[in-house]
Amino acid sequence: MEAVDLAAQVHAELVRRGATIGVAESLTGGDLCGLLTAAPGASATVLGGVVSYATAVKQQVLGVPDDVVDSHGVVSGECAEAMASGVRRLLGADWALSTTGVAGPDPQEDKPVGMVFIGVAGPSVVRAVELSLSGDRREIREQACAEALKGLLHELC
Amino acid sequence: MEAVDLAAQVHAELVRRGATIGVAESLTGGDLCGLLTAAPGASATVLGGVVSYATAVKQQVLGVPDDVVDSHGVVSGECAEAMASGVRRLLGADWALSTTGVAGPDPQEDKPVGMVFIGVAGPSVVRAVELSLSGDRREIREQACAEALKGLLHELC
Repeated sequence: MEAVDLAAQVHAELVRRGATIGVAESLTGGDLCGLLTAAPGASATVLGGVVSYATAVKQQVLGVPDDVVDSHGVVSGECAEAMASGVRRLLGADWALSTTGVAGPDPQEDKPVGMVFIGVAGPSVVRAVELSLSGDRREIREQACAEALKGLLHELC
Repeated sequence: MEAVDLAAQVHAELVRRGATIGVAESLTGGDLCGLLTAAPGASATVLGGVVSYATAVKQQVLGVPDDVVDSHGVVSGECAEAMASGVRRLLGADWALSTTGVAGPDPQEDKPVGMVFIGVAGPSVVRAVELSLSGDRREIREQACAEALKGLLHELC
């Protein structure tokens, strides 16, 4: 399924529940929030998001703990979970999604291009999923967005 | 010029100056930050951004003053300036861009579809430009992104 259709499905499911969402993005750089706000009526469910491209933004705006960054790095499930929890708290959203990983072309923190972590946070769940994606920078970002949306649908449906 | 080329030009100009950028988006929903982070090496200049889709996020995360919202509305040059100044301060960026306006299909605050304000904030400037754009929701968002990038290039070059 196309990412735009997945975003529409997320929107419909959130509307049905009267629930809101916030997004914390690193490697996807704003594309995930862009997908969620592309359709008319998005403001009924999307509160907004934070693109925490720099590590300091993850720490200072989203509240990712220093020891998560020091011990696990920003390309980690621990960081994805902290980003999702952080943006959920910051925006007062019912649900939150996060993305962090290596879009390439160069490795980061000695982690390979295509290593991506998706975080999901909700009223009674915080979890992260590790993905190993292939393709160029654009393709990895697109797949990360689609997988994030699928990850939330998995929790919601 | 295509938006992706404008983003590359912004990146090159910021690299030349050793300067950083942050983004505050409303109607563009993340697309502007997505454009700025699309190319390899973006992390040298892009610190991140805030998608303040809900009014409360504009106020509580970006620090847009309540009297700006009450007196001028969120679709206003005053709000665009406050969003740009707010994200520049929040992220500690040298430069900041903001977008706010009506992507449609419905009017907002009695303001017509296509009314868009772009904010630019830098070391010694804060200003907003009003645009009247036409097209569907997607086209208005795309044009808003391109005009924001042109607005920053106008200040930088």
